[in-house]
Amino acid sequence: MDPSGGPRPVISFLSDYGLDDEFVGVCKAVIAGIAPTARVIDIAHNVAPHDVRGGALTLVRAVQYLPGGVVLAVVDPGVATDRRLVAVEVERSVLVGPDNGLLAPAVAMLGGARRVVALTNEEYHLQAPGPTFAGRDVMAPVAAVVANGVPLSGLGEEVDPLGLVPGTVSLPHEDDAGIAGEVWWVDRFGNCQLNIDPAQLGARGGEVGGPVEVRIGGETRLARWVTSYAEARPAELVVLVDSYGLLSLAFDRRSAAEECGVHAGSGVTLEVPRRGPSIPVHPAS
Amino acid sequence: MDPSGGPRPVISFLSDYGLDDEFVGVCKAVIAGIAPTARVIDIAHNVAPHDVRGGALTLVRAVQYLPGGVVLAVVDPGVATDRRLVAVEVERSVLVGPDNGLLAPAVAMLGGARRVVALTNEEYHLQAPGPTFAGRDVMAPVAAVVANGVPLSGLGEEVDPLGLVPGTVSLPHEDDAGIAGEVWWVDRFGNCQLNIDPAQLGARGGEVGGPVEVRIGGETRLARWVTSYAEARPAELVVLVDSYGLLSLAFDRRSAAEECGVHAGSGVTLEVPRRGPSIPVHPAS
Amino acid sequence: MDPSGGPRPVISFLSDYGLDDEFVGVCKAVIAGIAPTARVIDIAHNVAPHDVRGGALTLVRAVQYLPGGVVLAVVDPGVATDRRLVAVEVERSVLVGPDNGLLAPAVAMLGGARRVVALTNEEYHLQAPGPTFAGRDVMAPVAAVVANGVPLSGLGEEVDPLGLVPGTVSLPHEDDAGIAGEVWWVDRFGNCQLNIDPAQLGARGGEVGGPVEVRIGGETRLARWVTSYAEARPAELVVLVDSYGLLSLAFDRRSAAEECGVHAGSGVTLEVPRRGPSIPVHPAS
Repeated sequence: MDPSGGPRPVISFLSDYGLDDEFVGVCKAVIAGIAPTARVIDIAHNVAPHDVRGGALTLVRAVQYLPGGVVLAVVDPGVATDRRLVAVEVERSVLVGPDNGLLAPAVAMLGGARRVVALTNEEYHLQAPGPTFAGRDVMAPVAAVVANGVPLSGLGEEVDPLGLVPGTVSLPHEDDAGIAGEVWWVDRFGNCQLNIDPAQLGARGGEVGGPVEVRIGGETRLARWVTSYAEARPAELVVLVDSYGLLSLAFDRRSAAEECGVHAGSGVTLEVPRRGPSIPVHPAS
Repeated sequence: MDPSGGPRPVISFLSDYGLDDEFVGVCKAVIAGIAPTARVIDIAHNVAPHDVRGGALTLVRAVQYLPGGVVLAVVDPGVATDRRLVAVEVERSVLVGPDNGLLAPAVAMLGGARRVVALTNEEYHLQAPGPTFAGRDVMAPVAAVVANGVPLSGLGEEVDPLGLVPGTVSLPHEDDAGIAGEVWWVDRFGNCQLNIDPAQLGARGGEVGGPVEVRIGGETRLARWVTSYAEARPAELVVLVDSYGLLSLAFDRRSAAEECGVHAGSGVTLEVPRRGPSIPVHPAS
Repeated sequence: MDPSGGPRPVISFLSDYGLDDEFVGVCKAVIAGIAPTARVIDIAHNVAPHDVRGGALTLVRAVQYLPGGVVLAVVDPGVATDRRLVAVEVERSVLVGPDNGLLAPAVAMLGGARRVVALTNEEYHLQAPGPTFAGRDVMAPVAAVVANGVPLSGLGEEVDPLGLVPGTVSLPHEDDAGIAGEVWWVDRFGNCQLNIDPAQLGARGGEVGGPVEVRIGGETRLARWVTSYAEARPAELVVLVDSYGLLSLAFDRRSAAEECGVHAGSGVTLEVPRRGPSIPVHPAS
């Protein structure tokens, strides 16, 4: 991240600021003023307002594809309270954001925190007329100075990585009735990513081409495990491994979320139907 | 497109990924990792999901203004089917995208294809956990290596340019009753671009300042041909040459689409009213 | 702004073009063609269509944070009328846009106009098929040539800075009944920025921690002056100094605009309740 020689440092930026106000633009302007050679890559800014969990999931999906550098992530419902702002050093990157669980899954994905500092050195903050825009006044300027090569030790007091607020990302529960997971993400096309690994379904006898019971609310639907959206027949619910390696519910060219009446956070149970002609399928809800 | 010396290569990027998910950001991150000196210009990402026709029209409107370089266009309802992904060399640019008609009008606008390759060399693709995000895993990395100067011949097998899937952009039909065209685009301001050239209306006796019959559904409205939005009187429908040189329906500071009840794809017939006091206007629908 | 040596020139860009069409992308492509080393920072493009006042307020909030360079601002309901397009030189920047009040508050915030030219030199404009996209054909190319170092005198005739169309930003009216202001801005989180300076409320005896009467329409609510969103109790309306130094109405993690039924432009009167047990509060509307 030396701006004088090598390639320009990259700051990847995620927030819940939306694109209607000037929040994102002002943060980038602040960065450009402090780190003129840095480039900013927008990951996403339409995380739902104050949705730390949705922001954390978006960040963890993206983070393995980011070039090394700085990751600036701002979903901060506790702005101007005593929640900490932190910089977290991982193997090839430094993540800057609030310590509220937003960064935790991404930090884990990147191999864990090597060092954490609280952003207490106000020398690197903007003087602000009011306390409510910490993205502009604290986190963006700190991301810029990190891109400029300022070491973490200059940003504030070192804190224990074990004290970071953990993420609240749910894991599935598996028992005789099936794998009880939830929808982690509904994308623009209405595909529903579940927090269920295909290997879990495989261990229960599921296989590509075979049937999968999908229980949502009190209702059970029979889906087929396919390998691409296009294999779905009209109006057929399918299950497939999505581009992140997780199981996803989909309809070809239609919204599975609308068809199934689910949204991020909805519970979904998957099960492989038992075989054999004499055992009728009576799935419990 | 030599990154070492001259100006930074440009990758212009259009998609139907929207801005709510991290799709666009992840593609840009992939590009930044492979081609650190390339810059990305976002043309538009809110093409309606899977709307190949709308994407093709957006691209063809934009493409004449793009600097030479790489054009990455992703509207790909057939992701993970056997539709081809291609790179198309035109005079000053290389277009990368699915071979589903999305690129065809832009390729024609840029003087036609000089060379086409199918993106079959997986050496330049990302290894992916699932097959459903070809923008991230195939097209973005290929756009980046083209920006780095890799020749088309390295990307895969050369294919016949004549075999490219043609665009499905409709042309107007002209007969005694008028010029039967359609709405190609409703912009943010509600202006309705038609697929009708002003010269066609001129050949029928139309002229600036004069009347134009506009038939939509079974209804006929009388409009005036003006040269700017501001010439429209309150609640007056006008026809004018828009910024792309095509005829457009407009109201001053109001949405012509809402006022006329049309959307992209709606049929619109234009005619120049006959003159003479004894011939009443009875337009057929 | 010498592209050969120092840092890359910055063009900060605000418009009402939205992000659904290719307008913004095409303007950036035009800039990239003319000024390949310039970088563009998007301030905001979702200003409501033709909302000059909203665009002016967005710009004035952002402008103090922009790095020196060029500011391109396009909210132009009078496109292709005889309204002027101008370049305005201020201390560290040049603003390019329509002379319709959009730039005026930002110019004042940046210390006032030193020089103004009308963009009459068509040598720097694009030849256009139609007259309706002055952002692409006039303002973006001019912003690019200014970034390239072309002096203002080359852009067109110098005009009197005193002749610029003033902004229509409203100021509050203060009398015995209180400070009658208005909502300048409702942000994504529903916070309502008022055009009222905290010093005005302080001069009437208001203080942090104390009560504030908030009159909206015929209704009076009692709010509390706090210093951060998080101090608000559930369902409590608070007044606080926002990140721009103005008073703002807020609810913690809820939309004050929805709770109070206000939008940009709504009238809001603030008053400090009189003290003393014998004087009941009967606020007039």
